[in-house]
Amino acid sequence: MAGLGTAAAAGYLSAPPAAPAPAAAAAVPVADFQDIGTGVLPFYGKRQSGITDEPPAHGTFVALTLAKGTDRVALGKLMRLLTDDAARLTRGEPALGDTDAELAVHPARLTVTFGFGPGLYRAAGLKSPVSDLPVFSIDRLQDRWSGGDLVIQICSDDALTVTHTQRMLIKDARPFGAIRWVQRGFRRSAGVHKAGFTQRNVFGQLDGTANPRDAEMETAVWNADHTTQLVVRRVRTDIETWDLLSVGDKENSTGRRMVSGAPLTGEAEHDEPDFTKLDSTGLPVMAGFSHVTRAHVTDPALKILRRPFNYDDAPDAQGRPDSGLVFASYQADIVRQYLPIQRRLAEKDLLNEWTTPIGSAVFAIPPGCAEGGWIGERILA
Amino acid sequence: MAGLGTAAAAGYLSAPPAAPAPAAAAAVPVADFQDIGTGVLPFYGKRQSGITDEPPAHGTFVALTLAKGTDRVALGKLMRLLTDDAARLTRGEPALGDTDAELAVHPARLTVTFGFGPGLYRAAGLKSPVSDLPVFSIDRLQDRWSGGDLVIQICSDDALTVTHTQRMLIKDARPFGAIRWVQRGFRRSAGVHKAGFTQRNVFGQLDGTANPRDAEMETAVWNADHTTQLVVRRVRTDIETWDLLSVGDKENSTGRRMVSGAPLTGEAEHDEPDFTKLDSTGLPVMAGFSHVTRAHVTDPALKILRRPFNYDDAPDAQGRPDSGLVFASYQADIVRQYLPIQRRLAEKDLLNEWTTPIGSAVFAIPPGCAEGGWIGERILA
Repeated sequence: MAGLGTAAAAGYLSAPPAAPAPAAAAAVPVADFQDIGTGVLPFYGKRQSGITDEPPAHGTFVALTLAKGTDRVALGKLMRLLTDDAARLTRGEPALGDTDAELAVHPARLTVTFGFGPGLYRAAGLKSPVSDLPVFSIDRLQDRWSGGDLVIQICSDDALTVTHTQRMLIKDARPFGAIRWVQRGFRRSAGVHKAGFTQRNVFGQLDGTANPRDAEMETAVWNADHTTQLVVRRVRTDIETWDLLSVGDKENSTGRRMVSGAPLTGEAEHDEPDFTKLDSTGLPVMAGFSHVTRAHVTDPALKILRRPFNYDDAPDAQGRPDSGLVFASYQADIVRQYLPIQRRLAEKDLLNEWTTPIGSAVFAIPPGCAEGGWIGERILA
Repeated sequence: MAGLGTAAAAGYLSAPPAAPAPAAAAAVPVADFQDIGTGVLPFYGKRQSGITDEPPAHGTFVALTLAKGTDRVALGKLMRLLTDDAARLTRGEPALGDTDAELAVHPARLTVTFGFGPGLYRAAGLKSPVSDLPVFSIDRLQDRWSGGDLVIQICSDDALTVTHTQRMLIKDARPFGAIRWVQRGFRRSAGVHKAGFTQRNVFGQLDGTANPRDAEMETAVWNADHTTQLVVRRVRTDIETWDLLSVGDKENSTGRRMVSGAPLTGEAEHDEPDFTKLDSTGLPVMAGFSHVTRAHVTDPALKILRRPFNYDDAPDAQGRPDSGLVFASYQADIVRQYLPIQRRLAEKDLLNEWTTPIGSAVFAIPPGCAEGGWIGERILA
């Protein structure tokens, strides 16, 4: 504690500068990087990144509540700042005024995606394209994981890059509002699976098999104006009771084989389930209450793009896990695509026995922007 | 909620089996793995793994408080169980009774390392080779991050592997005690840096430059009986005030260049600092209060092996980060090696202005074991 006095007296430390000078990005040696650190996804474009690209190992969602009086002009200022930060950081350059420039040099497929909640549109005096979800009977929502006027989704194959990016963006965003919640999640690390492999969640289930694929994305995810919509749900999993089930019971409740992810009526993960097939006792092989039966969508335009991350917070003293999914889905229209699926699941999905939604938020995802532009310019400018 | 009733009535779900049958490991397809998932470090051997090997991207420390009455015999039972779990999981096989066998197949350089705190020795009626550290003037220790009778260090390049391993071990450990604390940390992902590259912490500093290297490890880390000792300290960093400093002031406080990690008297990261060198004003270039000056050790046998992980919990509503280091160091003898360094740092290290130890724990690390043996057998059998 005596240190600072001594230091100041000895003349080593200058007064804190008004605007700290960041080290030049060029000064950071890059010889020791490997491929996973240098991966760059485009920031500028008609559509935002971080949506249909392969989700990386780490994903964090930061939701803000706007300060009272934050109007359209202020929002424009905010989004110009955040867009500039995101554009620089995603290409591996420090943000303007970056106080830890050395941490900015490994983007590792970093994406920063902005979403606007109903409250942001209200603040801007605009009509919101998204509305809060109805509360489902299975919901046990907590304020601390719900809502939000602005969301920043930060994804990267490197956790330290997520941390640094998050801090730089929060530093610029916080004069305009308060942090409402932060949800940090993970998937398998880069280099564990080949691209396109469906990953397992903390339940051990392959998660995302029914996602729209390739050309289906175009109508399922994107609107003609390059917008999309995001649902973020925090779904706590009761792994303790789930693990009391036998493998066969787990499979009956999901409708898929645990090992292969194949529907119980098929052989391979992507086989179409056959809901008419009966077993030797005359019951449907795909039980009426199975997750796949309830969630199944035939029309590709009605599919949703699941892009979830796992969470695993500290267990309690008895060793019971606090784990689950930061479920995130992108769809062109929440009302048309997400709601019918969620209603069917809430009504009768055996998996509800072992999962509890504890957080819920919706966001409209504005289009991307060209270099020199900023996210949200079409509605906030 | 009606689901389970319907399901049971339809005869789909059997009663939970007494011991769930795990899927056979061989049944899990491995064609879609890549290199980072398949990395295996040896579990059996004279020394435990997870110590002098390159730390991977994710590290979690789980500390337990033993239940009253857990004696030497019970401890032997516990360590036999945990050893068996660790041996299987580190080679990418499910644990016995593994309820999510599919999650066990990507070890990604998984290591599981066991450490015994003073309380474990007391419970076993034995003299402990380690004692709680004295409280330093800089400490603001919280019970929730301090102490522990048994620690399980779980490290892997994959976060889901850490989660699964942690759960399997806790399931077997919890009949013998309560979870005291869990600290989950991260470093750069595999494939970002080449092996041996000194990583940056959340402060942006290269962290671990002064570690013993190669042959130095032998005396600095290991005792003749293949034991070592572990200090775990949770060090909260006040990044907000740290970032008010200019780069020059940051460098004076650490004694190293931010970009290269070189001492202020040198050119390259591993140059020896010259504490006699004076600047043009006649002051030592390496300030007396700098972290390097205070922490410096000349005798290789007195060095400590820093093996820290970063943490980044959710920021508060004002956006102030809750970040820092899960500082972990291995040394042959805490009293001879760690304590003198820590005393000098506590007395006068300018970095104390921006860091606060909020947790502290010490553990003796027993030797490894041969196949068929178990960790702790030499003292608990």
